[in-house]
Amino acid sequence: MTMQSNMLEMGQRARVASRIIAAADTQVKSTALKAIAEAMLSSRAELLASNKLDLEAAAKNGLAQPLIDRLVLDDKGIEQMVAGVLQVESLGDPVGVISDMQYMPSGIQVGQMRVPLGVIGIIYESRPNVTVDAASLCLKAGNACILRGGSEAIHSNTAIAGCIKTGLLQAGLPPEVVQVIGTTDRAAVGELLKMSEYVDVLIPRGGKSLIERVSAEATMPVIKHLDGICHVYVDDDADVEMAVNIAVNSKTEKYAVCNAVETLLVAESMASSFLPLAAARYEQAGVELRACERSRTFLPNAVAASDEDWETEYLGPILAVKVVGGLAQAIDHIASYGSQHTDCIVSNDYVNTRRFITEVDSSSVLVNVSTQFADGFEYGLGAEIGISTDKLHVRGPVGLEGMTTRKYVVMGQGEVRIR
Amino acid sequence: MTMQSNMLEMGQRARVASRIIAAADTQVKSTALKAIAEAMLSSRAELLASNKLDLEAAAKNGLAQPLIDRLVLDDKGIEQMVAGVLQVESLGDPVGVISDMQYMPSGIQVGQMRVPLGVIGIIYESRPNVTVDAASLCLKAGNACILRGGSEAIHSNTAIAGCIKTGLLQAGLPPEVVQVIGTTDRAAVGELLKMSEYVDVLIPRGGKSLIERVSAEATMPVIKHLDGICHVYVDDDADVEMAVNIAVNSKTEKYAVCNAVETLLVAESMASSFLPLAAARYEQAGVELRACERSRTFLPNAVAASDEDWETEYLGPILAVKVVGGLAQAIDHIASYGSQHTDCIVSNDYVNTRRFITEVDSSSVLVNVSTQFADGFEYGLGAEIGISTDKLHVRGPVGLEGMTTRKYVVMGQGEVRIR
Repeated sequence: MTMQSNMLEMGQRARVASRIIAAADTQVKSTALKAIAEAMLSSRAELLASNKLDLEAAAKNGLAQPLIDRLVLDDKGIEQMVAGVLQVESLGDPVGVISDMQYMPSGIQVGQMRVPLGVIGIIYESRPNVTVDAASLCLKAGNACILRGGSEAIHSNTAIAGCIKTGLLQAGLPPEVVQVIGTTDRAAVGELLKMSEYVDVLIPRGGKSLIERVSAEATMPVIKHLDGICHVYVDDDADVEMAVNIAVNSKTEKYAVCNAVETLLVAESMASSFLPLAAARYEQAGVELRACERSRTFLPNAVAASDEDWETEYLGPILAVKVVGGLAQAIDHIASYGSQHTDCIVSNDYVNTRRFITEVDSSSVLVNVSTQFADGFEYGLGAEIGISTDKLHVRGPVGLEGMTTRKYVVMGQGEVRIR
Repeated sequence: MTMQSNMLEMGQRARVASRIIAAADTQVKSTALKAIAEAMLSSRAELLASNKLDLEAAAKNGLAQPLIDRLVLDDKGIEQMVAGVLQVESLGDPVGVISDMQYMPSGIQVGQMRVPLGVIGIIYESRPNVTVDAASLCLKAGNACILRGGSEAIHSNTAIAGCIKTGLLQAGLPPEVVQVIGTTDRAAVGELLKMSEYVDVLIPRGGKSLIERVSAEATMPVIKHLDGICHVYVDDDADVEMAVNIAVNSKTEKYAVCNAVETLLVAESMASSFLPLAAARYEQAGVELRACERSRTFLPNAVAASDEDWETEYLGPILAVKVVGGLAQAIDHIASYGSQHTDCIVSNDYVNTRRFITEVDSSSVLVNVSTQFADGFEYGLGAEIGISTDKLHVRGPVGLEGMTTRKYVVMGQGEVRIR
């Protein structure tokens, strides 16, 4: 069979399975999730052996060390995956919730019911845990899914897929609810992106080039996650200690995450009090500062920033620093250079915080908290499949609710419409 | 200046204006809407004269009569447009509503704020009233918009655009909040569809070929409205009189609308009692029936249906009729041939209605009411820009809320994240 017909068949099977999982009740989905967790624990040896094959191939192919690190699956990793599945099982079922049911003047009763999206395609890179994380979230939200992991993790992903299949069958669900593409042929991705008849939405998880390719080629809607060029703005009269703590934590708590701050904006009235204290803490942490002309007065050791620095997502221990006239300039800078991901104001001014919240058009707008909080777990979603930088459908951390849609439900007793 | 640079400038101006209208308070938007209504009333003579130019051109170009009918703007039409603007003015402002604000274990307080989408592009066909309807809805929801009407309505649309501009200026808003493309050059649409940097979402309103072109070419997300192949299913033991009333009203109340029923599905146990009564009413209304083999036993005057009839949106006095074994077959038929728009069950069976609501995957699922109710006004949205057959973002009638998105707002008092 050709690649194309293989993929089309996978799509058709997913569509059929999606109708079954959409109508499955909470109990059945819970049984499946628990059985998947069970199967992973009892397949520990196979999972480790499969992962070893991937690691050997990676070493042979000279894969870069950070990529190898992300590929490793050890006992602790398996336990984390299992805990993740059980955590998703414990979340409330979003499917079927009817909200705002109310009577209209015509006598009909109108509400909206939360329902699955249908079939979700997910394309991701090296970490094998994404296979089971994504599968659990799709299943809980009543969706069928087609998963495509990185070729370097093919053995691990296939072994994990086996555990998922076992769990689905034990719960009496069709195994096609979760299908993992078992070939490393890159053409399979191209086929997947064309299958708008069978795939309702595509979620790419990975680097910028993957996301750009998927956005350009996909024939179905895409929930994407682009750059996180996040800002912390230290407002006039901010509490200096709080500002330093937030500015430092927003950068250093974790560097390679999209919610790490990349540019620090400082009101000129705060520069002399705030910058030297912050610089000392950054130096301690080994963060390189790239500073504008005005801020360098207070940061003798900083490198001079170029225009490029305002639009760079470092994902590492580098921070751009700029002194601005005040709130209005900060908002303008964020509008020009930000990526509408996560931006924070440190302020004690009522009018300014209110204006920052209203005017900064980002998926998360924060007041007096670290940007590193922009995360599905911290927001109480229970889990997340990614952080959307799109405006339509879902913006910010995407949890179970973001993996569903709503339909109108209308009930009556024989009403007809007379215009 | 070239078409391309003209369009790009329009996009840039829209982006700038979108930040101003997004932050405008309810009062300012209301002032603008009232001033637009005022300007239309006082420009009555100019509006009628401009429309006359369009009608003369249409007659000269031999435009088909139904298209000419849609183009006509008379005193009553102007009053309806004005009433529409004032009605939008009277709706609640969706922007800035913060919901679900709650404390998390870390101490941060997380909620979601409803915010404008930014810049909305709307491409529509002959009716000039869409210009002001769309502009009012975009404005009220805090969005800037770029409107492109049909070339046959260019004079009417330009005159309406003048009234909108007057109203915006009177409210102290930039006129670029609503821009109407003033050229009939078709290349302008192609340029608009490429401007994803300046246009956040595109809404096509018109025939299938327009919507397909926009979906294929647009580089930004599209909220689209495709076919309405709607079903009424008459379940076992349905009340015959109710079933006849709903089946007839769903077709005949208005034919050329997307929520008109196109296929009637009848449980075999109901065929002998229901079909002859329904047929008599349809005959009276002049509706042609195209019936399956089994239903023709009860419908001697009906034409034999072909497979094509199950997937045709007639938008006229024709109805396909099919006898099915019962609920499961009805649901399967709808899944195979429906367009996920609006489907109705007439039933008095608790289990069956519950199953129909759960398993029929359409933007509106109705129980015991006419399909013609699937409409933003009837659903209490106040107004609608269209009916979305997409699954992402907004599904079914699209009102003010569908023209906004939500961002996370997080407030704290210096919390930092410790993993």
